Amino acid sequence: MSTRINLLVIFILIINLPSYATNIDKSLYRTPNADNLLYLELDVGLIIIEMNPLFAPKHVAQIKKLVRNDFYNGLTFYRVIDGFVAQAGTSIDEDNGHLDFEIKNKSLQLPIESRIANTVNKPFTLVQSPDMFAAKTGFIEGFTVAKNSEDSLTWLTHCPGVIGMSRNNAPNTATTDFYIVIGQAPRYLDSIMSVFGRVIYGMDNVQRIKRVNAKHNGNFINLSEGTTIKNISVASDLPKDKQLNIVVERTNTTRFRKKLSQRRMRADPFFYEKPPQVLDICQVPVETIIL
Amino acid sequence: MSTRINLLVIFILIINLPSYATNIDKSLYRTPNADNLLYLELDVGLIIIEMNPLFAPKHVAQIKKLVRNDFYNGLTFYRVIDGFVAQAGTSIDEDNGHLDFEIKNKSLQLPIESRIANTVNKPFTLVQSPDMFAAKTGFIEGFTVAKNSEDSLTWLTHCPGVIGMSRNNAPNTATTDFYIVIGQAPRYLDSIMSVFGRVIYGMDNVQRIKRVNAKHNGNFINLSEGTTIKNISVASDLPKDKQLNIVVERTNTTRFRKKLSQRRMRADPFFYEKPPQVLDICQVPVETIIL
Repeated sequence: MSTRINLLVIFILIINLPSYATNIDKSLYRTPNADNLLYLELDVGLIIIEMNPLFAPKHVAQIKKLVRNDFYNGLTFYRVIDGFVAQAGTSIDEDNGHLDFEIKNKSLQLPIESRIANTVNKPFTLVQSPDMFAAKTGFIEGFTVAKNSEDSLTWLTHCPGVIGMSRNNAPNTATTDFYIVIGQAPRYLDSIMSVFGRVIYGMDNVQRIKRVNAKHNGNFINLSEGTTIKNISVASDLPKDKQLNIVVERTNTTRFRKKLSQRRMRADPFFYEKPPQVLDICQVPVETIIL
Repeated sequence: MSTRINLLVIFILIINLPSYATNIDKSLYRTPNADNLLYLELDVGLIIIEMNPLFAPKHVAQIKKLVRNDFYNGLTFYRVIDGFVAQAGTSIDEDNGHLDFEIKNKSLQLPIESRIANTVNKPFTLVQSPDMFAAKTGFIEGFTVAKNSEDSLTWLTHCPGVIGMSRNNAPNTATTDFYIVIGQAPRYLDSIMSVFGRVIYGMDNVQRIKRVNAKHNGNFINLSEGTTIKNISVASDLPKDKQLNIVVERTNTTRFRKKLSQRRMRADPFFYEKPPQVLDICQVPVETIIL
């Protein structure tokens, strides 16, 4: 009897333990580096963000430092404009908007990191050339990018789910506030904002962040009505059993290129007339799977 | 004392009563025809849709007929794909998807109405030419449209908030199901779907419609988890005191054209480098005010 149970246990271990290792084709999916993942916990659910230090290294470093100092925990999404962005990351003065955290902390001011990435050795999968806003658009490791015609500059595009750092009018004024794009891509912000990541899981939860009555600038009149950040963690800081086993589709594979081509051609009979053979870089899903 | 109170009451009436009549400049805002407005009540809040019979007259007529027969009340949004569409409008067979309402009701099948509008006498405000998906894009009475280069065809574009009729593969198969666009504009659907309206109020509530575990085709596994339609009414059928006083920005005014130009030029110092001077037709807000 005990032998049977032990055999059963071993059998269960054999089936369950390595399942995620064997079921997922590693040539089609990659496991993001847990050092670059943020778990953003809201009362409406979990959101996972993959940061990309290639495009905004100082922003990623600062966000991680702030997260590790519990800076964001308890703060509220204080500016949520439906169809545009959800913004959080600083305290608000009830009378005047920003409590001068930023002014008090000049040391936190970041240089703009919008077009600094050296992507020469990174596999680029072309999506559209020209695109309405850039000479070329495409993917680098799951991230949506644009390039100039000489290929000398690459920047992350403002698609839904992208996360960037808010700033004042001057370029080098970002400190702690961030925004997540929640509506039709505001591509006019491309290359003048420091985008440092994208939501890879829980975009439905991002959409649940409350829109509340706001002043002319979009800041909420009554901050207490907003959605609060319960906690943000860097995934690699969490105990192993709290880290999700998450994989993201690779965007430099033959399979992904075929997917792009199918999206462009629309062979499916549903398309009784074929659309123009163009692709909007912000309208191409990249799969995330939690195993 | 009583005279003072009466004077006060009269004074309040004078300030409050005619405020919506006088504060809104009718040359800048129009009051949509209540015959073309749908009030879609969900447990997450109210959504108001303006239908446009110029573009899809038979679809609008059928939707009104179905609404007046309480067809939609109690049905569930059974296919909600984050970043794409929220779909409702028919019963679902737990095993096979659609309960054959559509097949049983061939009389409900609608001809495709995607490019039939005669817009010759309608004021058109140009936004972009060429746009990535069409020769021209612009506005006609608050609705986003595209045109071919000869101006002989006009169709409604699939921007966030647009509502169209679902169909099977063949063009003339729409019956009762509708979809609301909730993500990055799926412009590849332009001119092959019958779009018949757009959300003019409550897009934040549309975003709260539940995304639930789904089968491969996007239909929910467990329908009872979805968001239910409490009620849909045609606004003009409601008692006057239940009708909201709603106005929508006109899109053929000098003010609106100036707004487009400002969006294109971005003179604001926040734009320390100016973006390309192009506009995405789906990234131009049109104001709705409830008075």
